[in-house]
Amino acid sequence: MSSSSSIDQPNVITCKAMVAWEAGKDLVMEEVEVSPPQPLEIRVKVICTSLCRTDITAWESQAIFPRIFGHEASGIVESVGEGVTEFVKGDHVLTVFTGECKTCKHCESKKSNMCQVLGLERRGVMHSDQGTRFSVKGKPVYHYCAVSSFSEYTVVHSGCAVKVSQQAPLEKICLLSCGVAAGLGAAWNVADISKGSIVVIFGLGTVGLAVAQGAKLRGASQIIGVDINPEKYEKAKCFGVTDFLNPNEYNEPIQQVIKRISGGGTDYSFECIGNTGMVTTALQSCCDGWGLTVTLGVPKTNPEIASHYSAFLSGKTLKGSLFGGWKPKSDLPSLVNKYMNREIQVDEFITHNLPFEDINKAFTLMREGKCLRCVIHMPN
Amino acid sequence: MSSSSSIDQPNVITCKAMVAWEAGKDLVMEEVEVSPPQPLEIRVKVICTSLCRTDITAWESQAIFPRIFGHEASGIVESVGEGVTEFVKGDHVLTVFTGECKTCKHCESKKSNMCQVLGLERRGVMHSDQGTRFSVKGKPVYHYCAVSSFSEYTVVHSGCAVKVSQQAPLEKICLLSCGVAAGLGAAWNVADISKGSIVVIFGLGTVGLAVAQGAKLRGASQIIGVDINPEKYEKAKCFGVTDFLNPNEYNEPIQQVIKRISGGGTDYSFECIGNTGMVTTALQSCCDGWGLTVTLGVPKTNPEIASHYSAFLSGKTLKGSLFGGWKPKSDLPSLVNKYMNREIQVDEFITHNLPFEDINKAFTLMREGKCLRCVIHMPN
Repeated sequence: MSSSSSIDQPNVITCKAMVAWEAGKDLVMEEVEVSPPQPLEIRVKVICTSLCRTDITAWESQAIFPRIFGHEASGIVESVGEGVTEFVKGDHVLTVFTGECKTCKHCESKKSNMCQVLGLERRGVMHSDQGTRFSVKGKPVYHYCAVSSFSEYTVVHSGCAVKVSQQAPLEKICLLSCGVAAGLGAAWNVADISKGSIVVIFGLGTVGLAVAQGAKLRGASQIIGVDINPEKYEKAKCFGVTDFLNPNEYNEPIQQVIKRISGGGTDYSFECIGNTGMVTTALQSCCDGWGLTVTLGVPKTNPEIASHYSAFLSGKTLKGSLFGGWKPKSDLPSLVNKYMNREIQVDEFITHNLPFEDINKAFTLMREGKCLRCVIHMPN
Repeated sequence: MSSSSSIDQPNVITCKAMVAWEAGKDLVMEEVEVSPPQPLEIRVKVICTSLCRTDITAWESQAIFPRIFGHEASGIVESVGEGVTEFVKGDHVLTVFTGECKTCKHCESKKSNMCQVLGLERRGVMHSDQGTRFSVKGKPVYHYCAVSSFSEYTVVHSGCAVKVSQQAPLEKICLLSCGVAAGLGAAWNVADISKGSIVVIFGLGTVGLAVAQGAKLRGASQIIGVDINPEKYEKAKCFGVTDFLNPNEYNEPIQQVIKRISGGGTDYSFECIGNTGMVTTALQSCCDGWGLTVTLGVPKTNPEIASHYSAFLSGKTLKGSLFGGWKPKSDLPSLVNKYMNREIQVDEFITHNLPFEDINKAFTLMREGKCLRCVIHMPN
């Protein structure tokens, strides 16, 4: 990294980033130029970034290139743009793909985390000027999910970062900036799982196992995990999964098996794969009357969820959420504290630690179902 | 009616019934034989029965004939079967298409009205012996929805009738045995509409207008009614509808209009037509974050509800219910009392009163969208 920044007038930083030049092709380590933060933005030195399935889905399918992926990350504020009062250089932060402006109707409501100003995808550009802060040899490189953490330095809107305790280990808590928080939130905020209930989880990746952890901490009596990868079972146990079902081992639809072993259907079902067909299965797996299905995944193909109307006529509910219903700034610091107080497990999701230059290995591990979270460590 | 019943040993009753011999063909007045009630059953002299859209949907499409339709009704207990302790001859009752056994897991739960013993359709036969209690010239005639009220006398399971105050006018409260209760319950039990909220209702038939009434009584600030029949508007106003939208008058999708006039989407949307495509529209009409869509209708065609996953990702919920979530025995008497205390409107739904022999006129009126509820009065 070469920089001639001063505190008052940060300059362009040249640093390493892993750039995606086209869909599905290995990322390439490049020298990128990172602009100074514009008003209300901050520039962050990324410390660790973990790979989330959504990065891969977007890299495989989306049309905006070149691009710097990565959104589940921790870092340290390097400089702040005009008007930023919440952060100063040196603050430890988690980046978040969905922001919290604190002033829109949704941020003001207790019922929503769907910030109307900084929510969701901005098609690869920054909120303020619809431009990018990255370039390679003069060519703009697009952002991803308002974060783009596969770079030594990145620029994010100050509403898309959360200040956290300096004592929290950044190489662990980066997982709380997306997947683990999403799963815990789905169990606690969205489903509000009650003690003694029966839960089924489709997909035992990080999000699914974070749901399991959330269910276990709420006192669920049976936590059924469904995955076609039997290697997931051992790990799943440590997060509370009590019954493991591999649909490939049954000659009948898995929802029938689930209804049988749960005495008529589960109280809650969670789709954590990103398969809309499995949402239908999840609905069929939960019980009449009060069965609740929560969909968390972003589908890679067919975006339509379909279900026979009779599922709803019999009293079932289908609900979704983004980021487990957490308001990032309002809620993430307390989740970090829960980790610090050993009330929630995070370390156990980390199956691999890799240096930045090996990021393509992380992609391969995740595509092959060989990991939960690979934490990518940036160079010092 | 000819009968030689005694209190202890009721005999077969021969009476008039309107029998459906085939799908979509006019009902035919026939002399039917009505068996005595079997154990846990009661025989009811029907006083009034109102025509519900579901009767027509089943009559148009279902394959079980000959059949006696009708399920929204009031009557007086004529005789009781062995083991019935809850009713005696002379009790005033409402019949219900979904029962309450009071002992199953769902009846014991506060969260469900999906009785596992007496819930939903039993394919035209009685619960206890899978037989019928009607015959015409020795040929069995099937039941419908556990009620079959298009007959001077009918036999129902004692779990499918609700004792009501003798003071309540049976020619009015029959509406509370299905449609009006379903709409009020959807607004109160299922959606739990909060004061000041914005509601959209698709379909301004009896169920939709009962939802409107429920929303108004909860203090909703805006109640948008959607229907392609402009004749519904005047009546809709009296139940609280504040804005009327006819999709045929717009060149853009109606959900866009709704989002515009509601400031970004409604808090609640209700599908009361029985059109699964409209459930999708209803989902698109409610707001991100906390928008709740309740589906009440039974579709005449395409039974699949489809929606883009992003609706759920942005925090929307799709929920259904049967009979507005009411437990019939536990809840209907208090709903009847609310009517008696003028806390809810029922009379205003009755657009026509017809003698039993004119029941086919009621079918025509409803198919042509010319009525809300036609009350059919049985002969004295």
